Amino acid sequence: MTTRSGPEWVLFDMNGTLLDPSTLSAHLPSPLDTESAALGLLDESIGQSMVDTLVGRPRRFGEYLAAATARRLRLAGMDATQELVDETVAAVRQMPAFDEVPAALDRLRDAGLRLGVITNSATAVAEDALLYAGIRDRFEGVVGSDVPGVFKPDPRVYRVGVERLGARPEQAFFVAAHGWDTHGARAVGLRTAWVSRKERILLDSYADPEVSGYDVDEVAQAILE
Amino acid sequence: MTTRSGPEWVLFDMNGTLLDPSTLSAHLPSPLDTESAALGLLDESIGQSMVDTLVGRPRRFGEYLAAATARRLRLAGMDATQELVDETVAAVRQMPAFDEVPAALDRLRDAGLRLGVITNSATAVAEDALLYAGIRDRFEGVVGSDVPGVFKPDPRVYRVGVERLGARPEQAFFVAAHGWDTHGARAVGLRTAWVSRKERILLDSYADPEVSGYDVDEVAQAILE
Repeated sequence: MTTRSGPEWVLFDMNGTLLDPSTLSAHLPSPLDTESAALGLLDESIGQSMVDTLVGRPRRFGEYLAAATARRLRLAGMDATQELVDETVAAVRQMPAFDEVPAALDRLRDAGLRLGVITNSATAVAEDALLYAGIRDRFEGVVGSDVPGVFKPDPRVYRVGVERLGARPEQAFFVAAHGWDTHGARAVGLRTAWVSRKERILLDSYADPEVSGYDVDEVAQAILE
Repeated sequence: MTTRSGPEWVLFDMNGTLLDPSTLSAHLPSPLDTESAALGLLDESIGQSMVDTLVGRPRRFGEYLAAATARRLRLAGMDATQELVDETVAAVRQMPAFDEVPAALDRLRDAGLRLGVITNSATAVAEDALLYAGIRDRFEGVVGSDVPGVFKPDPRVYRVGVERLGARPEQAFFVAAHGWDTHGARAVGLRTAWVSRKERILLDSYADPEVSGYDVDEVAQAILE
């Protein structure tokens, strides 16, 4: 017997953690149709969401993605038509789950854990994206950034997410593939798990995650140990 | 006679706006000794400073630079020794001014404008960097992020900077080479000028600057018109 109680919930970031944004590249015109261009779009959108949360004027996440898309088209000397921009924004609802994700989620659920999503996408967009990827049914609830009205890593997003889902921070893991996201979750008392697939090396300035692994399967295994 | 009063102050961001961070590359070991690696270090440091301001646990800017340096060394398969990291952090105090900057600053002063600096570097680091670049004497004051204890674009940084310098926001221009920085300054009532040299195309989600130009000389000219 240990004195520490095990986790009851595992809460996931969505874009880049459960869903693979590299596929966005298939919806971008040349020369933006590479994996690094697709990931760059998402990074630039995340950056804008942090800036506007600091400035106190947050918009919808889709507007940041549209702005990033238009800027990159213009940098490539192209016309940022509404059609090209809309196609990219729509593609965010059509990303596949990373290969290992469905089985890893089932493994956690089979062990009795409850699953949820806390994402910077709007709730309706996230619901659509998870449905498209075929994993929506694994989660008891999805909380998007439209609920708190600000973006991660603002503490309000994690707090509102945990509250809506009915979890207790100290008995919930938050899983993300971004160091800034697990860092933000840790600051509000969540237990954290970092997926290293994309970033590979964690910045020293971020709080160490309790567990980490290359992908969601490795992280699920570590949470269950 | 116009009813609108002219500006009294021109306030500048420092790193990347007045001083050229591409020279940091000379202090980095291969394969990090490229201009894009140097700029990437600074961008990753800025990202951390925004994250920690949101999370509510800001550190000194130098710690973010150290963390970004160590991470990039490790990604390149190298040992992130204290010596290599310290060298990079120290190099931030030894950046030259962009070529056009001294004359452009003199031009603004000759027109009767008062000049100041509001930077995410600590005040003492910024003072050293401006002295090294030979332009400290153009400015009446320098306010670093250690004064408000948070980082731009948090509104407190611009407000405290303006207050310390004795300026009034509506009669001061804020000049920066980052769209997120002029966006943040605009939100607290400053007039803004964007230097397009590095970013080239402004994101649509950011507030339009009142004036813009390729470099500090073009921006100074536009402010004086």
